[in-house]
Amino acid sequence: MGFETKATIANFGGKLLKLEHDSTSTKTKMALNLYLPPAATSGSNTKVPVLIYLSGLTCTGDNCAEKGFFQCYASKHGIAVVYPDTSPRGANIQGEDESWDFGSGAGFYVDATEGDWKNNYNMYTYITEELPKALFESFEVLDAGRVSITGHSMGGHGALTLFLKNPGKYRSVSALAPITNPINCPWGQKAFTGYFGASNKGKWAEHDATELLKKWEGPFETLIDVGTGDNFYKNGQLLPENFEAAAKEKGVEKGVSVRYQKDYDHSYFFISSFAEDHVNYHAKFLLK
Amino acid sequence: MGFETKATIANFGGKLLKLEHDSTSTKTKMALNLYLPPAATSGSNTKVPVLIYLSGLTCTGDNCAEKGFFQCYASKHGIAVVYPDTSPRGANIQGEDESWDFGSGAGFYVDATEGDWKNNYNMYTYITEELPKALFESFEVLDAGRVSITGHSMGGHGALTLFLKNPGKYRSVSALAPITNPINCPWGQKAFTGYFGASNKGKWAEHDATELLKKWEGPFETLIDVGTGDNFYKNGQLLPENFEAAAKEKGVEKGVSVRYQKDYDHSYFFISSFAEDHVNYHAKFLLK
Repeated sequence: MGFETKATIANFGGKLLKLEHDSTSTKTKMALNLYLPPAATSGSNTKVPVLIYLSGLTCTGDNCAEKGFFQCYASKHGIAVVYPDTSPRGANIQGEDESWDFGSGAGFYVDATEGDWKNNYNMYTYITEELPKALFESFEVLDAGRVSITGHSMGGHGALTLFLKNPGKYRSVSALAPITNPINCPWGQKAFTGYFGASNKGKWAEHDATELLKKWEGPFETLIDVGTGDNFYKNGQLLPENFEAAAKEKGVEKGVSVRYQKDYDHSYFFISSFAEDHVNYHAKFLLK
Repeated sequence: MGFETKATIANFGGKLLKLEHDSTSTKTKMALNLYLPPAATSGSNTKVPVLIYLSGLTCTGDNCAEKGFFQCYASKHGIAVVYPDTSPRGANIQGEDESWDFGSGAGFYVDATEGDWKNNYNMYTYITEELPKALFESFEVLDAGRVSITGHSMGGHGALTLFLKNPGKYRSVSALAPITNPINCPWGQKAFTGYFGASNKGKWAEHDATELLKKWEGPFETLIDVGTGDNFYKNGQLLPENFEAAAKEKGVEKGVSVRYQKDYDHSYFFISSFAEDHVNYHAKFLLK
């Protein structure tokens, strides 16, 4: 499905495109931002690698494009950045807009199996299959062979689980303040109960980064930053220690760099402060 | 007058402080952001220089602190950044909130002489005298002897006029998409008519960067960026060519670097793209 370009904005020597397309996965119109670095807009025919950034609860693809500062470093490395939305919008499902941590803005990057949600809330298929396929068809400058993934909070959960569920699909994964063990935190339990049903614990585990890491075979590495002043961390929504324990259990702890950043909160002031480290981390894999 | 710290946010290794204080100039509570770089929060007693960033129409001190990325580069150079508000708030003047380019969010960094505005709309005195005095009293780490000024749009007008009206007060001045000749553009004519009266053209000229440059004696230098895709530039609100002509008339054109940035608009995507150049420019003066 082709994209409608709603705006083209000059930024850090490249272009930020505000795109919309009709999604077959969500059966809604989906908006996203695509940052094309100078290397992709110079008219040369060299393809650029792609970093997918998955946003957190309540966000759209706009928040990080405006406040995350990833474009600054993606521009220097010649990496494109994709900022998808966090859920379908306007699916007209009862309760869709009732809470900030379920429904609109809270798709959790899963394909729902329950109730009306399963008709539209298929963000897993949208992000892993439909969106990249559509982007690579419409933007020849994007290199389908070099894709990495990152995200924040619910989007960090998305990045880790999509990487762990699809060996070889992404070159690297990192996360900022990710929900790493949703089956054991209030946000995840509420979302998985709604999208998968309370009893379908097998399905829950299929979308839990800590559970997936326990089943992972072979080497694994990632970069994760968490702020020690993050109230969601302090209230047990992120549980990075559980992910670290699973890494140790699997003997891959050397590859799992979880950095506890003193005093940082959950906001874009935290994200922007470490955007450079995360883009540089992915550049090691995308540019080699 | 002391400050109340509403929030302390870790950012780029330093702290962003959300401050409020009671202003005698505006007779209202004024909010601002103060970014303290790592050099100012490390506990060492070395004072850091200060860059004042004046925001544009409709903004508060929050917009650029969230989307401008000056903190990233100020952190590296060890420079504090002050983000004041753009007008008094809640002064309860009739018409205060009726338009986006006059009254609230549109103080134009002048001391009003007309009607009810003169009681509260004294942003010139607030920015040049009251606010820095209060900051240097409350934050000993800030170096009162090393202050520079920059700004965007209406704030670029503020930066240029405050610098030109106060020789020696600021070490350097730069501006992003500044209103450089307000007496000849619709925004400036509306604001100056309201704050100074339609006939008080002498007062108008005292707050017009192009007119002030014509009267400036001695060397002058600045860095100005303007986007060629900026609709406000294209519609004659900024008039940088008039400022360049005045520089030539005074023989200081070599010091006046006006860069027309291809395709850039008026937004924070433009500001953030050139924040590094502007912080580096001021660092040359603040750190020598």
